[in-house]
Amino acid sequence: MNIKLRPIGFVECERQDLSDDYWGDVISRIILDDQIFPSDATLNLEQFSHLEIIYYLHEVDDDAIETGARYPRGDSSLPLVGIFGQRAKGRFNKLGLSRCELVAVNDYEITVKGLDAISESPVLDIKPLMSGFLPQGPIKEPSWTETIMANYYKTKG
Amino acid sequence: MNIKLRPIGFVECERQDLSDDYWGDVISRIILDDQIFPSDATLNLEQFSHLEIIYYLHEVDDDAIETGARYPRGDSSLPLVGIFGQRAKGRFNKLGLSRCELVAVNDYEITVKGLDAISESPVLDIKPLMSGFLPQGPIKEPSWTETIMANYYKTKG
Repeated sequence: MNIKLRPIGFVECERQDLSDDYWGDVISRIILDDQIFPSDATLNLEQFSHLEIIYYLHEVDDDAIETGARYPRGDSSLPLVGIFGQRAKGRFNKLGLSRCELVAVNDYEITVKGLDAISESPVLDIKPLMSGFLPQGPIKEPSWTETIMANYYKTKG
Repeated sequence: MNIKLRPIGFVECERQDLSDDYWGDVISRIILDDQIFPSDATLNLEQFSHLEIIYYLHEVDDDAIETGARYPRGDSSLPLVGIFGQRAKGRFNKLGLSRCELVAVNDYEITVKGLDAISESPVLDIKPLMSGFLPQGPIKEPSWTETIMANYYKTKG
């Protein structure tokens, strides 16, 4: 079974490299495909502070895809974890998912802050962040996530 | 540009209908494709309390896809909102995204609670919920989201 998707738009930003950290102050524009969408596709979108973006990790090589367990960030001082227990880029289907701040909306152009996608990434969906969809109750996660997230959203200053 | 994806597994649950509410107590099993993944793909996954699931809304008809503005849930007492300002199922690329509680992991079988996907939905990716990826700072959203979320995660009991 194959599922065919078509990008709804593309990311434009200054970030070209796939390195892991310092996404906090990255400003990106998502340019929607005006062949698919009318301009009211973004009507009232600015009433939300955050968006969830599903995008395609187009620069990840097929050889870099891991299907089993690996060390997060290749760091063997961390525990071995299966690919579904981490957010590594080298994953089957190459889907990226992250939240970002909404800065501005102008018809086909959505400006966001802190999106961890390099320039020219194909965008597959944009959803508004609704607090009702956030986890209710406490979140449990292993302690190594703190290590890998330490500089992820830091600004480079 | 076309992007071809292949399901990493499928949802099995009792819920067959695409209606909107009462997902809170739905228990689902995600059965991973053992032709793609070794059994350690889920190693240590149980250390997380919540997962984020990207899945394909396979039962949505192409005619039901909206690309512009519509009333959330078709309710004209709510404001008109562009498709990217709502989480309607009838959206381009038919991608579903939601968080759920992780109940149990058994090699190729992941049991979750509160996943808003009907049975047989193709799963495209599974990521662990890390608190570092949640929005920092206050969330702003329009008041109509409260109306539509009122019973979304209620239990039917």
